[in-house]
Amino acid sequence: MGLVEQLNSIFYPRSIAIIGATDNPKKVSYFCVRSVLEAGFKGKIYPVNPELSEILGLKTYPSLSAIPGEVDLMIISIPAQHTLPVIEEGIARGVKGMVMFTSGFSELGTREGLELQEKIKNMADAAGIKIIGPNSLGVINPRVNLNATFGLEMSLARPGHAAVATQSGGISTYIANILTANGTGISKLVSMGNRCNLSYDEILEYYAQDDDTRVIVLHVEGLDRARQFLEVARRVAKQKPVVAYKVGRSEKLNQPSLSHTGTLAGNYAVYKGAFAQAGIISVNSLSELADVTKALAYQPIPSGNRVAIVSAPAGLGIILADKCYESGLELAQLSPATEQRLRQVISPLNPVENPVDVAWVCRDRQASREVLQAVVEDNGVDMVVVGLIYPTMQIGLTEATGDVFQHCAKPVAVTSLSLPNDGNQTEIEKLEKAGIPVYTLPENTITGLAGLARYQRIREAFGG
Amino acid sequence: MGLVEQLNSIFYPRSIAIIGATDNPKKVSYFCVRSVLEAGFKGKIYPVNPELSEILGLKTYPSLSAIPGEVDLMIISIPAQHTLPVIEEGIARGVKGMVMFTSGFSELGTREGLELQEKIKNMADAAGIKIIGPNSLGVINPRVNLNATFGLEMSLARPGHAAVATQSGGISTYIANILTANGTGISKLVSMGNRCNLSYDEILEYYAQDDDTRVIVLHVEGLDRARQFLEVARRVAKQKPVVAYKVGRSEKLNQPSLSHTGTLAGNYAVYKGAFAQAGIISVNSLSELADVTKALAYQPIPSGNRVAIVSAPAGLGIILADKCYESGLELAQLSPATEQRLRQVISPLNPVENPVDVAWVCRDRQASREVLQAVVEDNGVDMVVVGLIYPTMQIGLTEATGDVFQHCAKPVAVTSLSLPNDGNQTEIEKLEKAGIPVYTLPENTITGLAGLARYQRIREAFGG
Repeated sequence: MGLVEQLNSIFYPRSIAIIGATDNPKKVSYFCVRSVLEAGFKGKIYPVNPELSEILGLKTYPSLSAIPGEVDLMIISIPAQHTLPVIEEGIARGVKGMVMFTSGFSELGTREGLELQEKIKNMADAAGIKIIGPNSLGVINPRVNLNATFGLEMSLARPGHAAVATQSGGISTYIANILTANGTGISKLVSMGNRCNLSYDEILEYYAQDDDTRVIVLHVEGLDRARQFLEVARRVAKQKPVVAYKVGRSEKLNQPSLSHTGTLAGNYAVYKGAFAQAGIISVNSLSELADVTKALAYQPIPSGNRVAIVSAPAGLGIILADKCYESGLELAQLSPATEQRLRQVISPLNPVENPVDVAWVCRDRQASREVLQAVVEDNGVDMVVVGLIYPTMQIGLTEATGDVFQHCAKPVAVTSLSLPNDGNQTEIEKLEKAGIPVYTLPENTITGLAGLARYQRIREAFGG
Repeated sequence: MGLVEQLNSIFYPRSIAIIGATDNPKKVSYFCVRSVLEAGFKGKIYPVNPELSEILGLKTYPSLSAIPGEVDLMIISIPAQHTLPVIEEGIARGVKGMVMFTSGFSELGTREGLELQEKIKNMADAAGIKIIGPNSLGVINPRVNLNATFGLEMSLARPGHAAVATQSGGISTYIANILTANGTGISKLVSMGNRCNLSYDEILEYYAQDDDTRVIVLHVEGLDRARQFLEVARRVAKQKPVVAYKVGRSEKLNQPSLSHTGTLAGNYAVYKGAFAQAGIISVNSLSELADVTKALAYQPIPSGNRVAIVSAPAGLGIILADKCYESGLELAQLSPATEQRLRQVISPLNPVENPVDVAWVCRDRQASREVLQAVVEDNGVDMVVVGLIYPTMQIGLTEATGDVFQHCAKPVAVTSLSLPNDGNQTEIEKLEKAGIPVYTLPENTITGLAGLARYQRIREAFGG
C-alpha cells in the first residue's frame, strides 16, 4: 500500500477491532468503545476481550482471529508488554492500520521502552502498514463519524476543513475544542504520540492530497526527519496553507536529543527560521492558531495587505485600525471616487476616511450594501473587515455583509459580539454558513486577516 | 456636593427621570426606558413626554416639573438644540446628576458643537453636579440593578469587582460582555462620551474609594487634564490596580488636539511611558484587558514572579511554561524537599521537575491535594497554575485545587476547557465561586498571572 491508502484505512475504516475492550468505566479502553459507538460510526465494531461476550450492547470476540469479517483498523489498548503478539496477529490477519493508546515505549526514555518501540516500528514497516502512536489519543474523522480515541468529547468536533496533527493527546483535545467552538471545524485529526512509523512529513503529504482539507494545522514539540519535513512542507505550502505551533520553546525544556543529523536543533529560533523558509505559517499561541486557521479555512487569498475597515461603532474601528498596524497590515487609502460614492450614502456629518464609520446607516441594508460595494470595488482595497456590536443591533450592515461577501473574490472578516437566544447567534451562523468568518474580538479578527496576508506572501514567494 | 456624592447620585439614584422617553421602538429613548425597567431598578422611574400618558406601563409625565417627588438622576435623550432649557430646568428642580445620550456636541468638531458643550459644562459646574456625556451610552451599576443606558444587553452585565470607564459606548458594550462572559463581573461602568465635566482623573478618584471595586479598568482614546490624571493614578495605583487600554495608536489616527499644555501628546509611546511611571498597567488588546482584570479581581498579590505549573496533560504544561518565559515570569525551581514530597505521591515513572506532570494522580483528590500543598508550601514558589483538559476528566485535581486555594495567600489560576451540560461547567463555577479564576486557554491564564506580577512590581516600587 502507498501512504494514502495506508492512512485511508485508518481515517476511513470499514471495520474496527478494539483490543482490550472492556466494560470497566475506569479503563481507557471502555471510553474507546463508547467513543467509537457514540460518534455514530457506520461500519462494523468488534470489541475484543476473551472474558466478555458483550460490551455496551456490542457482541464481543475472544480474539482477533474469532472476528468473522475483515478488519481495517485495529485499536490497541492493552499493556505494553502484551502488544507484540497482538500486532503480529493483526498483521497476519491482514489488518490495514493500527492506533495504539498504550504507553510505556520511547516516551519513558528507558532502553526497554526504546527497544520495544523499535520492534513495533520494524513490524509495521515490514507489513507496509501505519501504526498511529504508541502513546496516542488516536484519530478522528468527523465527516464519517469516526472517533477512534478514548475521548468521548472528541465526538463533538464539528466537521470542517482544517486537518490537524498534534504531538500530545491533551493538546488534540484543546485544538478540537477551539476549532469547533470558533466555527472552523475539522476535516481530520491525529494525535501523533510517539510516531513509531508515521512522521510529520508523511501526515503533511497525506493532508495535502485530502480533498476535505483546506488548511493544515500542526502542533509540534520536536521533529525527527526534519529535512524531509521541510522539503515536503515547501512543496505543500504552495498548494495549501500549513500553520504550525512549535512548543517547548524555552532552553530549559529543549530536548537534547534533537541535535543530530536530519533533525532540527531544539532552539526555537532555528525552528522559526526553518519554518519560514519552508513557507510554514508559525503561530505563537492556541488562540492565534485558531484565528489564522479560521480565516484560511473560510476565505480566499487576498492580493495584498491593504485593509478597509467598515465599522458601526467608531470606537471599534479605531481598535481594528490599531491592530492592522500592529499586525503588519496597511489601512487602505480609499480612492476619491470611492469617497464620493460613500459620501452619497453616509450622512455628511461623518467622515469617509478609512476606517469608514457607518453608525448612521447600519440599520439600512441597502445603504450598508452600497457602502460595502463601494469599498470592495476600490482597487486599493485587498481585504475588508466589518465591525459590529451585535448583529441584530446593526442588522442592515449584517445582512449587507452576507449579500456582498457571500461570493466575493476579496476576503472579509467580521468582528461581532453575540448573545445567546435573541437572534444574534442566528445571524452569526447565517454569515458563517455564507463562508464569512465572524470573530468575537477585534484583535482576533485582524489576526485572521493577517494570516491570509501571510499566506499570500508565501504563495507569491513560492509560486503557488 | 463633593465628587463622591455627585457620582453616588448617578450610580445609586433613588429616582430617575427620562427626558424624551417614548414608545417608538425606533428611538434610542425607547430602549432607555426598557433598559431601566427591565434591569429591575428598585427606585422610581419617571418617563417624561408631553404627548404620552404611559410608556411600557409606566405613568408618564408631561414635564420635569410635573414629577411629584425628588429626581436624583435625569437621563437626557432629546436633540441637542433642545437640551439647554431642560438642563436648566433640571438644575432648578434640584436634580443631582445627569446622563446625556444626545450627540451633536464637541464630537462634531464644529464651533457650534463646541460652544454648546461649553455652555452645558458651565451650567453643570455652576450647579455642582456631574453630567455624564454628552454622546454617552450612560452608566450601569449591576449590584443595584441600574442600567441607565440605551443598551438592553447592558442589563446582562454580571455584578463583580471591576469598575470600568470607557471613551466609546460601543467599547463599553464589548468590555461589559467580555468581563461578564469570563466571569469577572462589573462593579460600575461609565461610558464617558464627550466628558463635558467629568474627566478620567475624577472617575479614577471615585472608583478608588468605591468599596465594591477591586480593580479599575480604563479604555482611553485621548486624555485632557493629563497631568491631573497621572497624579491621581500614581496615588490610586498604590491602593488598587489600574488597568488601561490606550487605543488610537497609529500616527495617522492621532488627534492633533492632544499636544497642548496639560494634555498628553498623541504618540502611543508617550502614553505608554507616562502610564508606566504612574503605575498603570497598560494592556494591548481587549483580550489582555479581560485576562489581567480577571486575575486582579479574583486573586491576592504574589510576592514575586516564580510560577509552579501543575498540569495533568504534560503537553499543556509545556505550553504554560513557554508562555511564562514569554511573559517575563520565571519557572520556579522546586526545592529538594518539595521534590521528595512530590516523589512520594507521583509515580516514579514521572519526573518531578516543574512543570509537575500529575497525569497519574489527577483523578485522586487526596494525592492531588498533597501535590498542590507541597508545591504551594515551597518558598521558591510565588504563584501556581493548574492545567486541566476538562474538570470532570481530572476531577481529583479540580477538587484539590478548590481545597488548597480557596483561602490561600499565594495566587493560583487554572487552565481548563469546558463543555456545557455535562458537569464541566458546574465544576468551573465551583472553582470561581471559591475565588479561583479559570481560563480556557493557557496563554490567557499566564497573561492573568503576569498581570498579578506586574501589579506586585508596581506596589513594590510605589510602596503600596
